[in-house]
Amino acid sequence: MNDAPSNIAQGDLQDQKIKGYQSPLGVTRTQTVALRGVQTQSGFTFDHVEVSYQTLGTLSARRDNAILVCHALSGAAHVAGLHPDTGRPGWWDFHVGPGKAIDTDKFFVVSSNVLGGCDGSTGPMSPRPETGKPYGMDFPPVTVRDMVAVQSKLIEHLGIPRLFAVIGGSMGGMQALSWAVDLPERVRVCVPIATCTAHSAMQIAFNEIGRRAIMTDPNWNAGDYTPDRRPKHGLAVARMVGHVTYLSEYAMTRKFGRTLQPQIDSAAAEAALFTVESYLHHQGESFVNRFDPNSYLYLTKALDQFDLFGGRPPEEVLRQVKARFLVISFASDWLYPPAQSRELVRLLKRSRVAATYINLETLYGHDSFLIENPEFSDVVRAYLENEYRNGGFKEAGAEI
Amino acid sequence: MNDAPSNIAQGDLQDQKIKGYQSPLGVTRTQTVALRGVQTQSGFTFDHVEVSYQTLGTLSARRDNAILVCHALSGAAHVAGLHPDTGRPGWWDFHVGPGKAIDTDKFFVVSSNVLGGCDGSTGPMSPRPETGKPYGMDFPPVTVRDMVAVQSKLIEHLGIPRLFAVIGGSMGGMQALSWAVDLPERVRVCVPIATCTAHSAMQIAFNEIGRRAIMTDPNWNAGDYTPDRRPKHGLAVARMVGHVTYLSEYAMTRKFGRTLQPQIDSAAAEAALFTVESYLHHQGESFVNRFDPNSYLYLTKALDQFDLFGGRPPEEVLRQVKARFLVISFASDWLYPPAQSRELVRLLKRSRVAATYINLETLYGHDSFLIENPEFSDVVRAYLENEYRNGGFKEAGAEI
Repeated sequence: MNDAPSNIAQGDLQDQKIKGYQSPLGVTRTQTVALRGVQTQSGFTFDHVEVSYQTLGTLSARRDNAILVCHALSGAAHVAGLHPDTGRPGWWDFHVGPGKAIDTDKFFVVSSNVLGGCDGSTGPMSPRPETGKPYGMDFPPVTVRDMVAVQSKLIEHLGIPRLFAVIGGSMGGMQALSWAVDLPERVRVCVPIATCTAHSAMQIAFNEIGRRAIMTDPNWNAGDYTPDRRPKHGLAVARMVGHVTYLSEYAMTRKFGRTLQPQIDSAAAEAALFTVESYLHHQGESFVNRFDPNSYLYLTKALDQFDLFGGRPPEEVLRQVKARFLVISFASDWLYPPAQSRELVRLLKRSRVAATYINLETLYGHDSFLIENPEFSDVVRAYLENEYRNGGFKEAGAEI
Repeated sequence: MNDAPSNIAQGDLQDQKIKGYQSPLGVTRTQTVALRGVQTQSGFTFDHVEVSYQTLGTLSARRDNAILVCHALSGAAHVAGLHPDTGRPGWWDFHVGPGKAIDTDKFFVVSSNVLGGCDGSTGPMSPRPETGKPYGMDFPPVTVRDMVAVQSKLIEHLGIPRLFAVIGGSMGGMQALSWAVDLPERVRVCVPIATCTAHSAMQIAFNEIGRRAIMTDPNWNAGDYTPDRRPKHGLAVARMVGHVTYLSEYAMTRKFGRTLQPQIDSAAAEAALFTVESYLHHQGESFVNRFDPNSYLYLTKALDQFDLFGGRPPEEVLRQVKARFLVISFASDWLYPPAQSRELVRLLKRSRVAATYINLETLYGHDSFLIENPEFSDVVRAYLENEYRNGGFKEAGAEI
């Protein structure tokens, strides 16, 4: 990790070309499995669903050391190690691997691409069985709970009766929360990071800007685009919006400030004068090459519609939870502000769910969970190892 | 003002249809004047520049009561009173009028549309004298200092030797700062509101997203669009981005929360489910009808390139200033955070420029200067009237 960026928010590792970056896992591969019997919350029944997933480490003889890592909006099944085709590290290579926060020498790590995604799992790009053509906007609405239902089938398929832990940031944190609520008997430890129980108006607003950029790109064509005429400009703008909201003002000032592009031949209104501008262009363009615009629409809708309590009294919903919680937020995260995590912790405590909370004083905004961060690593590592030693959740009635 | 929205961030008044809104000024009109001898900082010479402007109140016999009000990015010459065509109030009708913060019974208020704008002043939409066709992207780059140079010619044209005050928020605040620095003998009082001396990387980034949305709209056509094929989708997305950054999380939560649209017939990924989404659509669409996309590119570039000190030591630049300052920021403004105003005040004080600073505890974000706000009104009114009584700026050598 000689030349890895240290403590500079970079967005997902999977978008980075990091000179000399070495993953201790070397090349890692994903697999695909077809799962039957998936019905969405909206009532759509799939004949089968393909799920792209990766496993790292070894499942213990007692099958009690499995950790499900849930990815965020732009993530993928390929969580750590180098991708066999692109050579790029997985999105959480900083934190998943031998001796890392999620230690693959001790734990059996599972990561899968979500339902509705575009990295090998069934999503809007997948061919519809009846026609052989992509679903496009005929894909059924997807919810975070649908994602979790598919993951639970994958976990069954892997012969894991109960997860030791489920962990994820942002959209991944929503999945972790849903696991703890929907499948209380099947998860011992829940680690939601930089997330919330329901999006605020501002979180919805930023997502809607991205969707609008995609849907007003003429190439979107009501979702019925071809590979050579994709709404790539709209998707790039959506990614630029996302990217800025993931960073902190500090991170942007430190990284770019008002530095000018090296070769400016014009002060004209169309020219990118500042390095931050060309950086955002690059972020938008590299995202376009690996992400499906319709998938972006479906997943951001799932985020916006997620509501852990769904109008029910939080205590009533949380009463069924058996997992123990580590809740993490970042002081500089203005997209998923710490107040949302604090409110979650307050509700957990009030419902007598064991919850440890830490608000890390990182300076890099929402992206803080994706970057190299020894403090974050230490907190996650210590919590997981301690809980694993202690056997994870207590049965009902035990002290918390 | 019976049904006027009270203390709810609404964006510009000019975009609002406010039932029963009454302006004490009644219908007000703008005029246009052609000014010769305008050369831009980039070296372009205009044969003449048209400037759309509005005056309210009466110039005193001593011609010492003129206040120039400078508009922000989406503003216009029509600052207060009802527009004769649309019936909509001017963008600062809450604060400009008889008995208001900027009291037209006492002061002679001048407001003009900036160079590069699209509300009657010369800008990218204007016909090029040689061809009769719009300049489009052949319009020369415009800077905040160019805007001020044109305003100063307008003020000369109106027979005003020296402004009593120059006031404005956001881009208007940058103009106010430039007046005090570039034309120190001609302004007694400077009131920059919710502004900065140079954009941060994050401020540039949000503007660049808007520009990118416009420039990747196929109808933009390198700036050479026709009235019936304008890049309206791109401009709408740009406005949506702007609008969200102008609001605070509190304002959005209070106004929208997770309220659903009344008639949802679909949970599909293309549907607007939440009221905040349709509100943003509306904001985008109403802006498209009144704003020119190329003008948006030019003005946001002017904002991003503005640098009051331009690499010179701030003390050296501020040493020439003679105006006295009232600097205002808003605690909930995350786009132009109070820290930027505090830094300005620190530099003013260090340069022995008289500066009063107030950080108002409003909850409505950057838009706080545009909305009804008695505390803001009181601060501005008291400061202006007190300074006017005391004769405005002290000559060099007087105590500060």
